[in-house]
Amino acid sequence: MADQCVFCGIVAGRIPSHKVAEDDSTFAFMDVNPASDGHLLVVPKRHSRDLLDIPPDDLSAVTLTAQRVARKAITELGADGVNLLNCCGADAWQTVFHFHLHVIPRYVDKGRDRLLLPWKPGVAGDRVSIERSAQRVSSAVT
Amino acid sequence: MADQCVFCGIVAGRIPSHKVAEDDSTFAFMDVNPASDGHLLVVPKRHSRDLLDIPPDDLSAVTLTAQRVARKAITELGADGVNLLNCCGADAWQTVFHFHLHVIPRYVDKGRDRLLLPWKPGVAGDRVSIERSAQRVSSAVT
Repeated sequence: MADQCVFCGIVAGRIPSHKVAEDDSTFAFMDVNPASDGHLLVVPKRHSRDLLDIPPDDLSAVTLTAQRVARKAITELGADGVNLLNCCGADAWQTVFHFHLHVIPRYVDKGRDRLLLPWKPGVAGDRVSIERSAQRVSSAVT
Repeated sequence: MADQCVFCGIVAGRIPSHKVAEDDSTFAFMDVNPASDGHLLVVPKRHSRDLLDIPPDDLSAVTLTAQRVARKAITELGADGVNLLNCCGADAWQTVFHFHLHVIPRYVDKGRDRLLLPWKPGVAGDRVSIERSAQRVSSAVT
């Protein structure tokens, strides 16, 4: 546990939260600054800073809990879809440095859904640049 | 395999792609409409429609492959962070109905990064609504 970590405090019960689910290694609770009705977060109980840091077993467990609560959010809240989002690093919008997966129910009714499309799909990328990136990443994957 | 599925075609090699990684159950390749330099997708080889449909073992495997390629994208492409994003349902921006996890390297240099923040963080939600959602979802999680 990291003493100064807000999410460690929530997991330990020192900081109040609206808990949605809990098992041996994960904890799910409502985001208090929701992007949509029912926006929640799933975290590992063991402290990890981010996606680069989290052990594979905790990452799997968090993802499976997210799937479970996403299903229930859709059926119980009448959502029309759901997004999972992880932000790794301040430049990728991470603000709390305890790994967390956002589960964001989505709605046709924009009164319940305040998300903006984060990029314009369908804009074809530069083929040369794409191929170069593929070569650099694939040659390094171990 | 779904005959009409583009991603099944990519996994099978019938449709060309820039492959980045492959193991027994997952396949990673470049997104041809990238939101940032190095934007790629990780899919299960077995066809699943979306997050609600994908078996837990495939979901875990896809997530762990995403972590692996995210690490390499950061080191090899000099990214400053990374986002993982899953879109489940047309109303959550899903456009190809074979489960996929976006791995989106992020950059301080906005010439390499075309993402817009999808919501305004820090806007406190309606406490009553949050508590009601928590109760509905948590009572249903099994």
